[in-house]
Amino acid sequence: MNTTIPEKGLSRESFHMDPEEFRKQGYAVVDWIADYYKQIESFRVLSQVAPGQIRASLPKQAPRQGEAFDRILGDVENLILPGLTHWQSPNFFAFFPSNASGPGILGELLSSGLGVQGMLWATSPACTELETLVLDWLVPALGLPEKFLSTATGGGVIQDTASSATLCAVLPARERATNFNSNRAGCTGKLTAYTSAQAHSSVEKAVQIAGIGRENLRLIEVDDKFAMDPEALARTIKQDIGSGLTPFFACATVGTTSANAIDPVRAIATICGEHKIWLHVDAAMSGTAALCPEFRYIHDGVEFADSYCFNPHKWMFTNFDCDCFYVADRKALIQTLSVLPEYLRNKATESGAVTDYRDWHIPLGRRFRSLKLWFVLRYYGIEGLQFHIREHIRLAQEFARWISQDARFELAAPTPLNLVCFRLRTGDEANQRLMDALNRSGDLYLTHTKLNGRFTLRLCIGQTNTQERHVRSAWERISEAASSTGAACE
Amino acid sequence: MNTTIPEKGLSRESFHMDPEEFRKQGYAVVDWIADYYKQIESFRVLSQVAPGQIRASLPKQAPRQGEAFDRILGDVENLILPGLTHWQSPNFFAFFPSNASGPGILGELLSSGLGVQGMLWATSPACTELETLVLDWLVPALGLPEKFLSTATGGGVIQDTASSATLCAVLPARERATNFNSNRAGCTGKLTAYTSAQAHSSVEKAVQIAGIGRENLRLIEVDDKFAMDPEALARTIKQDIGSGLTPFFACATVGTTSANAIDPVRAIATICGEHKIWLHVDAAMSGTAALCPEFRYIHDGVEFADSYCFNPHKWMFTNFDCDCFYVADRKALIQTLSVLPEYLRNKATESGAVTDYRDWHIPLGRRFRSLKLWFVLRYYGIEGLQFHIREHIRLAQEFARWISQDARFELAAPTPLNLVCFRLRTGDEANQRLMDALNRSGDLYLTHTKLNGRFTLRLCIGQTNTQERHVRSAWERISEAASSTGAACE
Repeated sequence: MNTTIPEKGLSRESFHMDPEEFRKQGYAVVDWIADYYKQIESFRVLSQVAPGQIRASLPKQAPRQGEAFDRILGDVENLILPGLTHWQSPNFFAFFPSNASGPGILGELLSSGLGVQGMLWATSPACTELETLVLDWLVPALGLPEKFLSTATGGGVIQDTASSATLCAVLPARERATNFNSNRAGCTGKLTAYTSAQAHSSVEKAVQIAGIGRENLRLIEVDDKFAMDPEALARTIKQDIGSGLTPFFACATVGTTSANAIDPVRAIATICGEHKIWLHVDAAMSGTAALCPEFRYIHDGVEFADSYCFNPHKWMFTNFDCDCFYVADRKALIQTLSVLPEYLRNKATESGAVTDYRDWHIPLGRRFRSLKLWFVLRYYGIEGLQFHIREHIRLAQEFARWISQDARFELAAPTPLNLVCFRLRTGDEANQRLMDALNRSGDLYLTHTKLNGRFTLRLCIGQTNTQERHVRSAWERISEAASSTGAACE
Repeated sequence: MNTTIPEKGLSRESFHMDPEEFRKQGYAVVDWIADYYKQIESFRVLSQVAPGQIRASLPKQAPRQGEAFDRILGDVENLILPGLTHWQSPNFFAFFPSNASGPGILGELLSSGLGVQGMLWATSPACTELETLVLDWLVPALGLPEKFLSTATGGGVIQDTASSATLCAVLPARERATNFNSNRAGCTGKLTAYTSAQAHSSVEKAVQIAGIGRENLRLIEVDDKFAMDPEALARTIKQDIGSGLTPFFACATVGTTSANAIDPVRAIATICGEHKIWLHVDAAMSGTAALCPEFRYIHDGVEFADSYCFNPHKWMFTNFDCDCFYVADRKALIQTLSVLPEYLRNKATESGAVTDYRDWHIPLGRRFRSLKLWFVLRYYGIEGLQFHIREHIRLAQEFARWISQDARFELAAPTPLNLVCFRLRTGDEANQRLMDALNRSGDLYLTHTKLNGRFTLRLCIGQTNTQERHVRSAWERISEAASSTGAACE
């Protein structure tokens, strides 16, 4: 039968995009992206639209009839682009980066095109086996312990984010501590968890989701470098045990969000070991640095951890989402998350010879995310990745030096890697004003935190295309704005 | 500085793929995908590789030095392709579909290319506003209640999967029932949840994750159509209340996984209303059918639900992952999942005028997933989507008729929409043998379940490119195999 689609001026058997039209429109989208990257420095990094402005520019209802693809792509250019904050701009220094790259984007494209679903090994063996392999590749590359290898007792899996990875560490920890009774009969409110006062908010979120309760999460004090104080940890654990509670989970952070602090994993691991506490190491941001032998010290002690994660989607040119999560004992994780209904039973699963990744995370379905990670690792090679990581860290050290040499500013924390925390000496209001002026300008984008109660600017260097000239220019803009806003001298 | 990358034969300032190389390689990947779809019917639908075979064909270690892109793409063709099960083949009838389309793939490509991160409104206003708008578009398009609109008290958000959506329904339900004390102090083991014995395994998984315990999940019996029996539900709730427990959550299913049964949502809602139980409606598979007025009856009673989800990545040509999750009271969801650290504070959030989707799900970071959904809705138009949904349902009804007219077979359940449950009359072993023979042939792929304890074949028609000829051919193959394996006459 033939259907006429007036908008497209076509008469055809279906409303689908056929392979030849896909080829044509695919080229158009590839061109659009290539041109976007060529022009990206001309856009204001932080979008300046008002709330509701983008929505107001779009139709209130879904179209009854199909539209031509070039009209849709035109609307991306005209209506969507003004509402974007350009995370891939080399002048993006906010939060932590979420850096993409050509091979990452094309790996994701291939994954979308293939459209396979890797919930079970059988539903696309290559989706599972490539993921296991690539996560194994990263174990020696990052100096991680052999127990995280799939060929040992552990294994790695790609999660969407470190938030989900943290939850997937809390859950088997909870079950191990309760002999799998929490899964069976529910939580008891007697378990206690530990992380530093500088840890990511996702630890609190995970503890709430898992039914532990945020009052049972102890935020351990930090030292003057914003790293967890192991003595305070040991003290708190003992108090809790004395109160009849059961310490079950600790999260150490390698590269905290506010200040990029590196918790003393080895000391924390010793304490956790004494009390059989599950130790998770959240290296979401900074784990990538361990690709370089000279920064591998950040993983000291990880050999005693029960689980670990880092995010190639932050600093390893693999576009979001891609968090690599490892466990030392995959059986505990699988036993915690596995529910096997009849409609998912199959011979490969029952043989025990395969991995079914659906039992390694919250969702059942899963994309072929290892393709993009594999593409990135092969296209750059370990040496290519090392080159750029070193360069980002070198630039951050340079920037920190400029700050320390300008009497108007002070460094607010050490700069172990690629995040610089700094502030004007003139107080919170001046720093807020400085940040707002810079972000409004569109020339760069940076964000803030509070350290020791004081408003602090954060400049993180990790965007794929950030080069020395961008960092120099950012420093010039910051220095000028500090003068012109009067922020430096009130 | 210049770096020489021997493999690529290039001398350059960085290891990155520059925009012009991206353009060239992007065309190559687009071509590869277009050609893949042209040839897709020539591949065996279910991969026949042995466990470990794909991994064994790949290097044991990550490469030290970068490789040329065309070599990587060549390895996809030669080494990965044999390990794929072809979910986008028109001969894929297994599980539920995960159907992709050209506009969906290109929307995802654009999302990857832009690489924006929509955790907060401010981090890319268009990412949030387009998502809110498109989810609002779907409310009238599916005949959903107005309370799910963002302009009312509710709103929609894209989750990765229905498993995550179910968890995000259980959590605010838990908090509402405990006055937000579970988040604060942990769970108590006194809450009880309800779903049918035919509900998806993700309900049990969510209840375990949330600290409720699977023993506190009641699997309510079903009627002869495999739909939940509301009287049994009411009875069980009363028993639990009598035992001092607190019923807090029920999940009704619109299109169960095994048999595509439609739970009586209105009757269930009445019972939940009496006891202030949070009602979640899981329409992951079948919600899409409600785009057609003649199938909108499946949403009867959803106006009383507290939350609802359906999956455009199953049956609405929007490639995985894309689950649309709605709540009637967004405040309850946000209050449950929000943790606001200093480094995420910003003026837009504090103004209260914007939506920060990070508080609507487990992860913090999020992709620009609404682009692909917007592309699909615009490219097809509601009428284009209706056309294909109707065609899939028509073909399933045809297939069911052929089954019912062949004395060797019987229908194992009603066929309300696009899933046919059937079996040989000769018993479980014969059906298992029939399925294995068909799947081994590579000509088609279908899976099984158990209904009333009996092995049952499931044939689901929802793949993007499935046409009448594919369904006819599947029936011929099934019919032949039933004869040639002797399965039909033992």
